[in-house]
Amino acid sequence: MLREITEQPAVVGRLLDAAREVVAVAGALRRRDPAAVIFTARGSSDNAAVYGKYLIEATLGIPCGLAAPSVVTLYERPPRLRGGVVVALSQSGESPDVVEYVRAARRQGALTVGVTNAPASALAGATHHTLLLHAGPEHSVAATKTYVAQLTVLAMLVSAWAREVALERGLMGLPALLEQALALEPVARETAPRYRHMEECLVTARGYNYATALEAALKLKETCYVAAEALSAADLLHGPIAVVEHGFPVLLFALRGRALSFMQQVAARLAGLGAELITITDDEPLPGAAVTLRLPQASSGSAFPEALTPVPAIVPAQLLAYHLSVVRGVNPDVPRGLRKVTRTR
Amino acid sequence: MLREITEQPAVVGRLLDAAREVVAVAGALRRRDPAAVIFTARGSSDNAAVYGKYLIEATLGIPCGLAAPSVVTLYERPPRLRGGVVVALSQSGESPDVVEYVRAARRQGALTVGVTNAPASALAGATHHTLLLHAGPEHSVAATKTYVAQLTVLAMLVSAWAREVALERGLMGLPALLEQALALEPVARETAPRYRHMEECLVTARGYNYATALEAALKLKETCYVAAEALSAADLLHGPIAVVEHGFPVLLFALRGRALSFMQQVAARLAGLGAELITITDDEPLPGAAVTLRLPQASSGSAFPEALTPVPAIVPAQLLAYHLSVVRGVNPDVPRGLRKVTRTR
Repeated sequence: MLREITEQPAVVGRLLDAAREVVAVAGALRRRDPAAVIFTARGSSDNAAVYGKYLIEATLGIPCGLAAPSVVTLYERPPRLRGGVVVALSQSGESPDVVEYVRAARRQGALTVGVTNAPASALAGATHHTLLLHAGPEHSVAATKTYVAQLTVLAMLVSAWAREVALERGLMGLPALLEQALALEPVARETAPRYRHMEECLVTARGYNYATALEAALKLKETCYVAAEALSAADLLHGPIAVVEHGFPVLLFALRGRALSFMQQVAARLAGLGAELITITDDEPLPGAAVTLRLPQASSGSAFPEALTPVPAIVPAQLLAYHLSVVRGVNPDVPRGLRKVTRTR
Repeated sequence: MLREITEQPAVVGRLLDAAREVVAVAGALRRRDPAAVIFTARGSSDNAAVYGKYLIEATLGIPCGLAAPSVVTLYERPPRLRGGVVVALSQSGESPDVVEYVRAARRQGALTVGVTNAPASALAGATHHTLLLHAGPEHSVAATKTYVAQLTVLAMLVSAWAREVALERGLMGLPALLEQALALEPVARETAPRYRHMEECLVTARGYNYATALEAALKLKETCYVAAEALSAADLLHGPIAVVEHGFPVLLFALRGRALSFMQQVAARLAGLGAELITITDDEPLPGAAVTLRLPQASSGSAFPEALTPVPAIVPAQLLAYHLSVVRGVNPDVPRGLRKVTRTR
């Protein structure tokens, strides 16, 4: 797992070099000009889909949905997609319900795009277009480099589709930012023992980084067996904040951009409740934080798009999950009860 | 909270009597024949929206999305809805981000429907159509009868929109089923002390009752301060099942219908891991369950639509949350850190 985490700058660099296939798919999407985009995915890929939803809605204004594959596989009712687009995310390309959803959508006339690390997979065979992750084999059951590659491909796709120069420029800075994020490894290693006996925690963020919170919580569950729940910071205030008592651990993402001031307010409120705040930020450390994992700011400064912050922001959380699993005596590469390809229908 | 739980059969009865306004809105939706339906909601209402999504997708085949209100309020990018429909759910009708999303959607040409308990609310003023919950004042911060009323209104709406006779017939049976579900109160009261010291749990279901799992987990968080996370049973197998060790509590819904056999398999797998299984079912008790809250079957037998099972299925979970909060010394009507109307933007 640790080796795969450290490969991430190289993976993203390779992806950026393979921009030509992304540009071709973006052209097809632009010509289709869909009324809606539906994502279908499971597990980590579902978290990447949440990122894709925010990205497309906020950049292109096209409403997006996350498919409930059960509607097709359990209830056998394929959605009428009438000229829509379906984006299917599966690292292995073998998740049966995702593949089945894509086939049903294609029969309904949807334009289908698969994002996968496996060129010979069932998913790659089922979609009109395939975008490869170029991440190399991922051996750890806990996905890390394929998740970061999924975010990057989605950002490349939307950047080309919307012809967003700021996104494109930001993308070029990602390998260096990822490299700098990896420099937080010693901090993650020193932090881990403090949470050796943590049984539960909340993970929170808002906007683009809601996906980061979901993915960080999943890594903590998979590799550390911590009951970590991710909540958008807005939803947190609508009820779940009741669980936060003195010493309750909350992992909070506060990245620069439009969500920052809201996250600072939520952090202050959590600190007031006595929460044990673990923060990941590329801004000033938050008052009341027990732990700060501080990401570098992009050298381009304020011009770095908030839309790309989820790519480096997940790295300290991956490092923390890795080191926490080690101090807890868990093998992070082979969590109990999991296999690399989960077959649900 | 307990009084409001027991009012639910009467609330649903009143709603069924007010079918005329639902039929009128259903006619407007049928004429619009939208390419997509977007739900916008927060808190418990968001869980009702998940139910609405499954219901519309599986009954009408129209793809649905849950709006990320942040896209409008943080990133100021209203989705281009081109003839779509937006359904906004807010019990108080005063959630600022929900109201703002509706206003933005209406400016984009969407047909907007508000579902609220407050006829004079900002939401009722902002939408083209309003469907009232007729639930009477809800004093407990933890929503119960308004949640059940939201599900019922959504089912009435889709039943009228799709002209689904089976749904309509099933709806008529709901007040009696809810009355029978309330008879589980003594079981919930006797069960509660066993979980007095529970700090965390998973809540799982699939298909229509995924919404039930989300709502049950929210009630446990709000009223008992238990870190309860809801997961679709399919997603559970894609990673989070790693947290389940011997004695780990899992609240599992296994209602009759297409999801049942999958839930039985998941229950067997969880029992094999030594999970402490609390089950809510209207079928045979599940082998390996530590606790069974058994709902009556509708007297119409196998004809009762699975799509309506989430209405009675939430009741035992509400009763369990109520009694658990009492044995834990919490006032379930006024959870710490919460107010009835949460104002997020």
